[in-house]
Amino acid sequence: MTETRMLGVLGGMGPLAGATFMARLTLLTPAARDQEHIPAVLWSDPRVPDRTAARLAGGEDPLPWLVRGIRGLEAAGCGAIAIPCNTAHGWFDAMQAATPLPILHIVEAAADELGRLGLAAGPVGLLATKGTLAMRLYQDRLEGRGYRCLVPPEAEMDEAVMPAIERVKANRVAEAYAPLAEAAMRLVERGARGVVLGCTEIPLGIAAGPALPFPVADTIDALARAALAWARPAG
Amino acid sequence: MTETRMLGVLGGMGPLAGATFMARLTLLTPAARDQEHIPAVLWSDPRVPDRTAARLAGGEDPLPWLVRGIRGLEAAGCGAIAIPCNTAHGWFDAMQAATPLPILHIVEAAADELGRLGLAAGPVGLLATKGTLAMRLYQDRLEGRGYRCLVPPEAEMDEAVMPAIERVKANRVAEAYAPLAEAAMRLVERGARGVVLGCTEIPLGIAAGPALPFPVADTIDALARAALAWARPAG
Repeated sequence: MTETRMLGVLGGMGPLAGATFMARLTLLTPAARDQEHIPAVLWSDPRVPDRTAARLAGGEDPLPWLVRGIRGLEAAGCGAIAIPCNTAHGWFDAMQAATPLPILHIVEAAADELGRLGLAAGPVGLLATKGTLAMRLYQDRLEGRGYRCLVPPEAEMDEAVMPAIERVKANRVAEAYAPLAEAAMRLVERGARGVVLGCTEIPLGIAAGPALPFPVADTIDALARAALAWARPAG
Repeated sequence: MTETRMLGVLGGMGPLAGATFMARLTLLTPAARDQEHIPAVLWSDPRVPDRTAARLAGGEDPLPWLVRGIRGLEAAGCGAIAIPCNTAHGWFDAMQAATPLPILHIVEAAADELGRLGLAAGPVGLLATKGTLAMRLYQDRLEGRGYRCLVPPEAEMDEAVMPAIERVKANRVAEAYAPLAEAAMRLVERGARGVVLGCTEIPLGIAAGPALPFPVADTIDALARAALAWARPAG
């Protein structure tokens, strides 16, 4: 058995996003047969306490659950960790301090994806959980790269974006399309040149309807590309 | 952290089938939020040597790789194992002998699925790898339940079914639809009352085109239902 590096995936947040990450990782890999695909272990534990509730409403701390998953991926022999949940990156520093394995940062991957889409700087829309917005996971990093982040108004977050994310987690994926597409469109109407789908449930909802007529940075695909670059470094 | 039973998934054979199994498991679970979904670990090692080549062409034995994955799932704390690869079930007895964890049998799950589709007995078509057909994984079990299995002729296996399975593994999923749909239709023309998609790449190809106008037993969904029944026993 030749030893190659296995990718660790800390998923389950939500479980459909983790499964879709594995599918997109596979479909984005240049491979002609099974044995050319990337070995990976997906730790899909949907019991991790809700990240937005922990940050904004005094909910249970997810960190012990996140570290437990990381220990599982370490034990499996993984060489790096990808986490297809944006809000969980609010605990990035604590997770990285808990493991010697490199953790790929989804916001850095999303910023790279914006570049790939031809959006080098300027106003971009940001759809994400209230937790991700409140922790400024995107705003601080993207503004450091010359972007300006537009986010939906509070009422639209409460009435459209958060309920749509909850529908995806409840397997009502098709019902998430319209509110998410409308929220993205409003950001473009306000001047955004593209929209970051900064919660891994959002691209699942957006995929359930017609493609949006402006650039969108899908953070599932962005993280899958970063994982591929780790697993198969060019040159 | 409450202890519930984690499902172990020995996947990667191929990796898109394993990822799709995780997605279908999620979508088939009655859940209103992340925390109501089923915890699972997917061991996705696509390096497992080709199962059909091992059985029919003296290829490398996959068993050490399969057992290695089972050890990983044991170490992760899983309580049962599902294997979304039909051909790997040719090594079922050896795998079951190697672990105290129960392994859910995909052929038993497929037989249950036929019942669910209203096909209690009689002629059914069987699309699978040449390895699965040669090992009689389906024929012996289904004939014991009163079914009669119709399989494609050798030339059609070589020219249509096996190349279509290889296309899915090579991420050319859409190109797999036509040959698989035609092979299924020919089995129905020969008298099959429904068709078992007895290789987990086959439902992926069939999903890439219009739904078939006869009952099909999707072995990814069948195994996901068996896993759900294990994780959430009724009553």
